[in-house]
Amino acid sequence: MNDLKAYLAAKQSIINQWIDAYISQKSRAGQITRAMQYSLSAGGKRVRPILCLAAAEAVGGNPNDILHVACAMELIHTYSLIHDDLPAMDDDALRRGKPTLHIQFDEATAVLAGDALLTIAFQILSDPQYLASDKNQGTLEVIHNITTAAGCIGMIDGQVLDMVSEGHKLNLNEIKTLHKKKTGALIEASVFAGALLGGASDQEMLALNEYASNIGLAFQVADDILNVIGNPTKMGKAVGTDADRDKNTFPSVMGLAESQAYARQLIEKALHAIKSFDKKSEPLRGIALYIIERNS
Amino acid sequence: MNDLKAYLAAKQSIINQWIDAYISQKSRAGQITRAMQYSLSAGGKRVRPILCLAAAEAVGGNPNDILHVACAMELIHTYSLIHDDLPAMDDDALRRGKPTLHIQFDEATAVLAGDALLTIAFQILSDPQYLASDKNQGTLEVIHNITTAAGCIGMIDGQVLDMVSEGHKLNLNEIKTLHKKKTGALIEASVFAGALLGGASDQEMLALNEYASNIGLAFQVADDILNVIGNPTKMGKAVGTDADRDKNTFPSVMGLAESQAYARQLIEKALHAIKSFDKKSEPLRGIALYIIERNS
Repeated sequence: MNDLKAYLAAKQSIINQWIDAYISQKSRAGQITRAMQYSLSAGGKRVRPILCLAAAEAVGGNPNDILHVACAMELIHTYSLIHDDLPAMDDDALRRGKPTLHIQFDEATAVLAGDALLTIAFQILSDPQYLASDKNQGTLEVIHNITTAAGCIGMIDGQVLDMVSEGHKLNLNEIKTLHKKKTGALIEASVFAGALLGGASDQEMLALNEYASNIGLAFQVADDILNVIGNPTKMGKAVGTDADRDKNTFPSVMGLAESQAYARQLIEKALHAIKSFDKKSEPLRGIALYIIERNS
Repeated sequence: MNDLKAYLAAKQSIINQWIDAYISQKSRAGQITRAMQYSLSAGGKRVRPILCLAAAEAVGGNPNDILHVACAMELIHTYSLIHDDLPAMDDDALRRGKPTLHIQFDEATAVLAGDALLTIAFQILSDPQYLASDKNQGTLEVIHNITTAAGCIGMIDGQVLDMVSEGHKLNLNEIKTLHKKKTGALIEASVFAGALLGGASDQEMLALNEYASNIGLAFQVADDILNVIGNPTKMGKAVGTDADRDKNTFPSVMGLAESQAYARQLIEKALHAIKSFDKKSEPLRGIALYIIERNS
């Protein structure tokens, strides 16, 4: 676990540096740039880019070659948080203990900063500065996979399902579908990108997809559990808010103990999927366990 | 001019059919799909995709091979209109004579439909169904060019400049910069995409870029002129609204007659840039003239 902490901290540091440099370089230093930087530096755990790098390592790829791809995933994740927080959507005033972007700046800036982050993600993915010509085909495949995950049968549909379901009860399958789209799709796309560009075999791709789909769902189950039993100080946000809003969560449908058992079961399935991988996949195993052991 | 009308009508028809089929195929038939279809079928002139196809033709390319790229440009244009119309931005209730998307549906749907259109544009551009493997490199170059044009030194920055400048006077250079970003960048990217994937030589690329940058600006000058002297019935929207809002327009800075002369001068420069092109570039010439002769 100490090894994992050091691994996560090292990756977070190179990811943060890379994102910071790219954003400063590629945008006029105005309000939108400051807004993007505000949200990007708001303390995200960088789960998606780290998974992308760790997946590449697990199949023997060089994570340095795909650092830009990993960072693009974080930009897409950040854009989705900014737009989901808007008054017309979830109307959230706090995220990670800080005012949300439309509170700190204004609503127009939040819409445009989200639009800019999504656009810059594809700018990064297609940036000739980082493209090896033998990776053109794979890069296009990764872009296509990300757009499907982030688009209107993936993440955007997840947000729609989340909004329309507020106020009426979903069953377990409906909640799973919602979160597979809203959170799972982009996590799967991050692992897919790292694995494909890292040179995974077809068999490794299948195993990593199974790994990703299980940890993606476990991640949301753990989030729901933390909203019930988490420590508000450590999390930098209030707990109990899901229940107050009558949100559909795993604990509300399955009960708390069953949700905890379900999260463990998902992580076991994820670990089982990559059991034949060698020790280069240790970070992936560590991240899977971290998902259910974290306290923020 | 009759030839041009037939050309535009034929292209509009294949563009509309293609977009309609793609959207139906690739999205769950829910609210966001209906919202995207509403905005996409609101009577846009399809200027950007037609320019993309005509640029490919002008350099001897087959427009059928890049129809998907042309249509992606229209999706990006439509996303930008939807977000610009939002209450937090320009707060427009009518577009092309119909209620804007957030009026017809709601604000959350308008944000998400815009996000979805931008995402689907890149889904189209990277869709293996339409990619010839010898075009991988060119496709990535086109994606990168589009993201730069649509991003926060291009179209998004144009919208920022437009919003912050409301209520105080810009000079002519500032207005030019604003519109080069807000409207010009995506028009240039459309011509670039068609030319590059159509197989343009370096010299043709330069000429077409000069063509595009001049018609891009002329397009906005003509729009501003129509807002002063246009026929509201033909245009499907009110006129005089720019003056009412004290917006920075070419007529407000240069005067009406000077704006008309300036638009003609820009079109002459555009035509001059492609004067050595053969008759396959007739549509590009026709479109340039159409920009200043249109009444809607």
